Amino acid sequence: MLSINGPRLKANLLELADIGFNEEDRGVYRPGFGQADMASRKWLMAKAEQEGLAHYMDGAGNVFFGVGELDKPAVLMGSHIDTVPAGGIFDGALGVMAAFEIVQRLKEENVELNAPVWGVATAEEEGRFGGMLGSQAISGSLNPDWLLSAHDADNIYLKDAMAEHGLNVLDALEAAWQPEQLKAFFELHIEQGPVLFQKDLQIGVVDGISGVFKWIVHLKGKADHAGTAPMDMRSDAFMGLADFAHEIERIIAENGTDKTRITVGKVSLKPGHPHTVPGEAIFTIVGRDMSEEVMKELAQACHRTLSAIARKHRLRFEYEQVSWLEPKHCSAKLTDLIEAQTKNRDLTYTRMPSGAGHDTQFMTEITDAGLIFIPSVNGVSHAPDEWSHWHDVTAGANVMFDSVLAVAGSDKHFGRKRGESHD
Amino acid sequence: MLSINGPRLKANLLELADIGFNEEDRGVYRPGFGQADMASRKWLMAKAEQEGLAHYMDGAGNVFFGVGELDKPAVLMGSHIDTVPAGGIFDGALGVMAAFEIVQRLKEENVELNAPVWGVATAEEEGRFGGMLGSQAISGSLNPDWLLSAHDADNIYLKDAMAEHGLNVLDALEAAWQPEQLKAFFELHIEQGPVLFQKDLQIGVVDGISGVFKWIVHLKGKADHAGTAPMDMRSDAFMGLADFAHEIERIIAENGTDKTRITVGKVSLKPGHPHTVPGEAIFTIVGRDMSEEVMKELAQACHRTLSAIARKHRLRFEYEQVSWLEPKHCSAKLTDLIEAQTKNRDLTYTRMPSGAGHDTQFMTEITDAGLIFIPSVNGVSHAPDEWSHWHDVTAGANVMFDSVLAVAGSDKHFGRKRGESHD
Repeated sequence: MLSINGPRLKANLLELADIGFNEEDRGVYRPGFGQADMASRKWLMAKAEQEGLAHYMDGAGNVFFGVGELDKPAVLMGSHIDTVPAGGIFDGALGVMAAFEIVQRLKEENVELNAPVWGVATAEEEGRFGGMLGSQAISGSLNPDWLLSAHDADNIYLKDAMAEHGLNVLDALEAAWQPEQLKAFFELHIEQGPVLFQKDLQIGVVDGISGVFKWIVHLKGKADHAGTAPMDMRSDAFMGLADFAHEIERIIAENGTDKTRITVGKVSLKPGHPHTVPGEAIFTIVGRDMSEEVMKELAQACHRTLSAIARKHRLRFEYEQVSWLEPKHCSAKLTDLIEAQTKNRDLTYTRMPSGAGHDTQFMTEITDAGLIFIPSVNGVSHAPDEWSHWHDVTAGANVMFDSVLAVAGSDKHFGRKRGESHD
Repeated sequence: MLSINGPRLKANLLELADIGFNEEDRGVYRPGFGQADMASRKWLMAKAEQEGLAHYMDGAGNVFFGVGELDKPAVLMGSHIDTVPAGGIFDGALGVMAAFEIVQRLKEENVELNAPVWGVATAEEEGRFGGMLGSQAISGSLNPDWLLSAHDADNIYLKDAMAEHGLNVLDALEAAWQPEQLKAFFELHIEQGPVLFQKDLQIGVVDGISGVFKWIVHLKGKADHAGTAPMDMRSDAFMGLADFAHEIERIIAENGTDKTRITVGKVSLKPGHPHTVPGEAIFTIVGRDMSEEVMKELAQACHRTLSAIARKHRLRFEYEQVSWLEPKHCSAKLTDLIEAQTKNRDLTYTRMPSGAGHDTQFMTEITDAGLIFIPSVNGVSHAPDEWSHWHDVTAGANVMFDSVLAVAGSDKHFGRKRGESHD
C-alpha cells in the first residue's frame, strides 16, 4: 500500500503559507489575482518544473500539474490556492498541496496507471469578485457578460485585476473541460466547522454541498415613544422578529432534517433608538439543507410563521428571496469509494454534508466528484487561528491517494458523457 | 363659570407656530437657545407687554408672565417653548399659550385672587444639551460643573449658545424658586401617546411621570459559519436575545403592572453577516413603571431571565445600567382637584402615568404639581404631523383654568415648606 510523504506535505504547506503571510496578525493574505496569489501560482509552477512534472496555467489562472498525457480521461484533484484576507494556512492550500504530493508519489514510484492523474490550484474560489472563477471556468459555467462586469468590494474589476498579471479575462472561457476529458474529481479540504473535531472523528466523507436560500425580510410596524405607547397598543417590529426567531427550532423540528440550518445573521432596526419602539425590522434568513424538497418546506414554514406573527403584532411582512442555490450531490460511487478507503485505513469517519461552498460544487456539473474533510480545530476557519493537526492532514491525503489510485488504476466506468445525468 | 377664549388661544398657537416653521417638511425648528427659540421668547415678552402683563426673563432663559405681585406664594403654570427639530406645533407650546390665555382672562375679568397667578415658558426642555434646563433651574437642581460642561451633539457648548444671546450660563443658578414662593404648579401638555385618542377620551389626569431604567446588554457567544455549524453546536448570541424578547410578555405579567413598558429599541449584531452565526448581540432594554418597587422587580426578572437564557445558549451575559430614574409623583391633592374639574365640565377622562418626561417632573421637587393631558391624534408627536383637535385644546385649557382658580381662590393649604416631604 502506497502512502503519501507526510513530512514533505507539511513542509510544502508551510512553504506556501509564507506567501502572503502577515507578521502582525499572523494571517495569510492571498486574495484572488492579488500579488501574493499570483506569486503562489508561480511558486507552484516552478515547483512542478523542479520536480519534472508537466504543468500549465489556463486562461482563468488555474494552475495544472500532473503525470500522464491528457489525451485520455483524467483523474483530477485539487482545490484553491487563494485565501480570504487574514485567512489560515489550510483552507484551499491543503487540497492543492495534497494533490501535488500525490502526483509526486506517483511519479517517484513510477506507478502504472490507466488514466492521467493531475492536480489543479483553482483561481479565485473565495469570491473576491463574486464567484468561484477557477472551477466555474473548468466546468464551463462562465459567460462573457459576467466576466466583464464582475468587480470586488473596492470596485476593482476582475478584468483589470487579471490584466495586471498579463491575463485576458475572456480567455477564462477557453478553460472549460469537456465531461469526456474527465474520469473523476477529488477535493480534500478542512471541514471549517466543528463536527469532526467535537465528535473526535478523523475523516468526513462528504455527501454533497447543502443547498442554500437567502431572504431579506422586512417587518413593518409603527415607531412609537417607548414611554407613551402601552404594550398592547404597539406594532413592535422587533417583537415580531423575536417571535419568529423563537419559532426556528420548531420549524426545523417539523420540516427539517439533522442537516438543516436556519440562521438570522444580520438585523437592522429602524429607527434603532433605545427609547423608541422599533417601527421596522430588516433581517436576513439563510436556510440550508441537502434536499431541495426540504428547503422548499422550510421556506414555506418560514413564510407561514412570519405571516401569522405579522398578523399578531399588526405588522406588514415583505420579503425578497435574494438567492436559491440547489444542493449539489457528490457522486454516490465516489462517496462509497472514499468511505471504503477510509475504513481500509482504519480511520474514524462520518458521512456529512458540506455547509460551506467548495470548488467541488461546480465540478459535480461535469464529472463524478468526491469531497473529503479533515477536522478543523475548534471548527475555526477564515481566521489566522485556523488549524488542523498534521496527523489528520496525512490521513486525509492518504484517503485521497487511495481513492485516486482506485479510480485511475481501475477499468470501471467513472465520469460522464456530455448530457449524461448525475449518478 | 369662567372659560378660556378658545379662538384666541388657537390664534396664538398658530402665531407661535410660525416661529421656526419650515416650509419644506412643515416641521417646527426651535431647538433650545437657537435663533428661533430666542425669537419665540422675545415674541412672548412683547405679547405680554402689549397685553399689559407683568413679565421677565430669568437667568436660565425662562420667560415669566402673570397677574399679581410675586410677594405671596404663587400658582405657576407652564411648559416649554423650545421644540425638537422638525417638531409639531403643540408639544410644549400648548402649555405655554394656555397659561398665557388664562392669565389674560384673569386680567380682563379682573378676577380677585388669593394668590398671584403666573405662567412660564421654560427653556431647553427637549434636551439639546442633555437636561431640562429651565425647570431644573426653577427647581434648584443645577450645578455649575454641569452648566459649564454641557454641550449638544454637535459639540456646541450650552455656555456658548447662551452667550450668543447675551446670557451668562451661571446666571441659571440664580433662577431657583424656593418652595415657600409657590402654591402649586400646573402643566397642560399633549399626551404624545395613543391612549386617549384610541380610547376616545378628552382628558388625561396624570398621576406622575414613570420611572425609567436603561440597560445596555451584551450577550457573547461564538461567531460561526452559518453553513458548517450545526444548530446544536452553536452559541448564537441573537437567539439568546430573541428568547429574551419572547419572555418580556411573561416578565411583565409576573412582575409588572398595566403601566409597565419594556422595550428593546436598539440591536447590534457582530459580525452582522447573513452567512455568519452572530457571535455577539448588543442591545438596549428600557423599562418603565410608576412604582420604583415594581421597577426593581422588573430589573431582577430581566436579570434572571437573561442569566438562564445565557446558560441555555452557552453565552456570556454582561450588562451596564446606564440610568435609573425614579418615578415622579404628581401631587395627589392636585390630581384629585384636576379630576374634580374634569368631571365638573362633563369631560371624559382617565387617570394615567406619563411615559415621557415633562417639566413637571422637576417641579414635583419643590411644590405640589399637576399635569393634564389632551389627546394626540394617532399618538403622534415629535414630528410635523403631530396634531390635537382644537376642541380638545379648549377643553384642556379650561380644566387647567378651573384648577388654577380652585387653588388661587382658595384658603386651603397648597405647596410645601422647605424640606417638607411630598403629599
